[in-house]
Amino acid sequence: MNERKNIRVGITQGDINGIGYEIIFKTFDNPEMFEICTPVIYGSPKAAAYHRKALEMETPYNAIEHAGEMQHGKLNIINCNSDELHIELGSSTPEAGAAAYEALEAAIKDYNEGKIDVLVTCPIDKSTIQCKEFNFPGHTEYLQERCGGESKSLMVLCSGDLRVAVATSHMALRDIPAAITPELLEEKLTLLNDCLKVNFNIDAPKIAVLSLNPHAGDNGLLGNEEQEVIIPTIRKMNDGGIFCYGPFAVDGFMGSGKYTCFDAILAMYHDQGLAPLKAIAMNEGVNFTAGLPIIRTSPAHGVAFDIAGKGIADESSFRQAIYTAIDIYRNRNMYEQARRNPLRKLYFEKRDDSNRLNLQQADNEE
Amino acid sequence: MNERKNIRVGITQGDINGIGYEIIFKTFDNPEMFEICTPVIYGSPKAAAYHRKALEMETPYNAIEHAGEMQHGKLNIINCNSDELHIELGSSTPEAGAAAYEALEAAIKDYNEGKIDVLVTCPIDKSTIQCKEFNFPGHTEYLQERCGGESKSLMVLCSGDLRVAVATSHMALRDIPAAITPELLEEKLTLLNDCLKVNFNIDAPKIAVLSLNPHAGDNGLLGNEEQEVIIPTIRKMNDGGIFCYGPFAVDGFMGSGKYTCFDAILAMYHDQGLAPLKAIAMNEGVNFTAGLPIIRTSPAHGVAFDIAGKGIADESSFRQAIYTAIDIYRNRNMYEQARRNPLRKLYFEKRDDSNRLNLQQADNEE
Repeated sequence: MNERKNIRVGITQGDINGIGYEIIFKTFDNPEMFEICTPVIYGSPKAAAYHRKALEMETPYNAIEHAGEMQHGKLNIINCNSDELHIELGSSTPEAGAAAYEALEAAIKDYNEGKIDVLVTCPIDKSTIQCKEFNFPGHTEYLQERCGGESKSLMVLCSGDLRVAVATSHMALRDIPAAITPELLEEKLTLLNDCLKVNFNIDAPKIAVLSLNPHAGDNGLLGNEEQEVIIPTIRKMNDGGIFCYGPFAVDGFMGSGKYTCFDAILAMYHDQGLAPLKAIAMNEGVNFTAGLPIIRTSPAHGVAFDIAGKGIADESSFRQAIYTAIDIYRNRNMYEQARRNPLRKLYFEKRDDSNRLNLQQADNEE
Repeated sequence: MNERKNIRVGITQGDINGIGYEIIFKTFDNPEMFEICTPVIYGSPKAAAYHRKALEMETPYNAIEHAGEMQHGKLNIINCNSDELHIELGSSTPEAGAAAYEALEAAIKDYNEGKIDVLVTCPIDKSTIQCKEFNFPGHTEYLQERCGGESKSLMVLCSGDLRVAVATSHMALRDIPAAITPELLEEKLTLLNDCLKVNFNIDAPKIAVLSLNPHAGDNGLLGNEEQEVIIPTIRKMNDGGIFCYGPFAVDGFMGSGKYTCFDAILAMYHDQGLAPLKAIAMNEGVNFTAGLPIIRTSPAHGVAFDIAGKGIADESSFRQAIYTAIDIYRNRNMYEQARRNPLRKLYFEKRDDSNRLNLQQADNEE
């Protein structure tokens, strides 16, 4: 990964009946955005034109055939869909699901060929995007399958210094207790620890672990997962050099402001982590898929069918998603650069009263 | 219930090893508090003296034998515990559990005899208070048993205009899905609707109902409780004249600020409701037990053993609990007064072109 001035940001259109194009246009209506990145939308110029007209906006864009034609300073858009595409603002249609999938596939292909540096995805309608090829509850799981290889992914929601990862994500509440195993928590804590080091340049991250049950189980009165799974895992991870603490009852932890003492929080499930974060961050939350080679962020909201095409969508979260993707791209570069040419290990000989540096001993004798 | 100027506020000491006395002293260190209420602590003058010394505070109090000796303008305290009481700051001890229980019992007895108007409880350690007589997961369930009679209770957390009730409360996460039944939701929605009318003087309350599963179940992809239980119940309640809406996915609902459009929120479980509320309200949250004849509030935090006796506890939530109890006392009075002498129902006779008031028709002919 080489440092580049204008980071190439691939953007998928998401659901064409939602607010995807609106937040893209509002963000790139500001010319300063082009000073930090070169955007390329994977979508449909037809859908873009439709939304621009509905919103009475004038944001210019540059329709291109493939990523090679990308121009700096312009809002590039690659056509991934049929020209017959039909848009129904605010509706959940199979056609929009297929269009979202095609755009995502094209972006992943270009990412894998090195044509874009980071990926920012607009929200999809998870019920219509389902097809033979996309059989996942969300982007996170799909990306793990398509770009993860052996590595596991972790959903992290960020807003400034507040970072929340979830041990289980798109899962019915009734399935959560059985899913919280020592193996899962170890995997997620390791991923989160690595993520904080590599993507956020935090040298020795401190992680808070939330409890599964209310009141952290109240010493076993309200469930035993804390005693049986969470506490032993926290101890084991600390022995292994990952600094994690807890389990904390989420309500008191957030209410007392204790979360400001940690670099990240591991929540046991989706709503436990995301509800307080979004309540605090309002429209500034960003979703980041950690653990994968690909850098992918997205706004923390959904398709927002109820306000599609009305011009009232708030683009803050999407803009923050672009900033975060760029920050992470740079942080990863810094992390790699800092470790590219490690100092040669030095060997000392203890002789008499003094220690003597021995420059003769070869590194490979380690 | 008669309107009185100085509302008699019974305060239970809670766990003597926690921050109960600290928040009481800090609150009543302000002489203005005595202008709105006459406080009486159910506790132990010995424990009070111990804490006052540990905290190096000088708040005066008035040790009395029974509620009849209560003096206005003073911080009255009734001894409910043995003089041999042993305090271990920050520790969970059976002795402290017993002392908390004795104080609570004495307060309830006085409330039932009309000697206090409202009850504000300091936090208890739920694991040590358990005994033959107190076999409940928390205050809420205990009060329902002791003062509820036939009526059911509902835990409501408030901070300003944000009010959150929970359909299930002190329950292990794994037991929640089975507990969410149409009957339970109907009961809780009815209780919440009544509570908003009587205790908060809101004429036609609008209630938001949260979903059980993340993303409100994503049309059945992530659990079916929304389709099978929550949505049908919402429809039924609306047909019956209770205005409720949803189910909303909690993260988006809080993140978008949509909660400001509703008078109250019904969360499906403890952490779902309390975590975002406390994240927003920080130290100002107040817990109110709705549905019972007794008016009881409490601060939203716990015993806080980790900071007991250090002088750094924040009393805001406790002070708000007192304000809220007083507000609710007055609101209930207003509600009852407004309905005490209803206008006589008027009957009109339709004759010729005009309607004629018939004052002869007796009310009991209805």
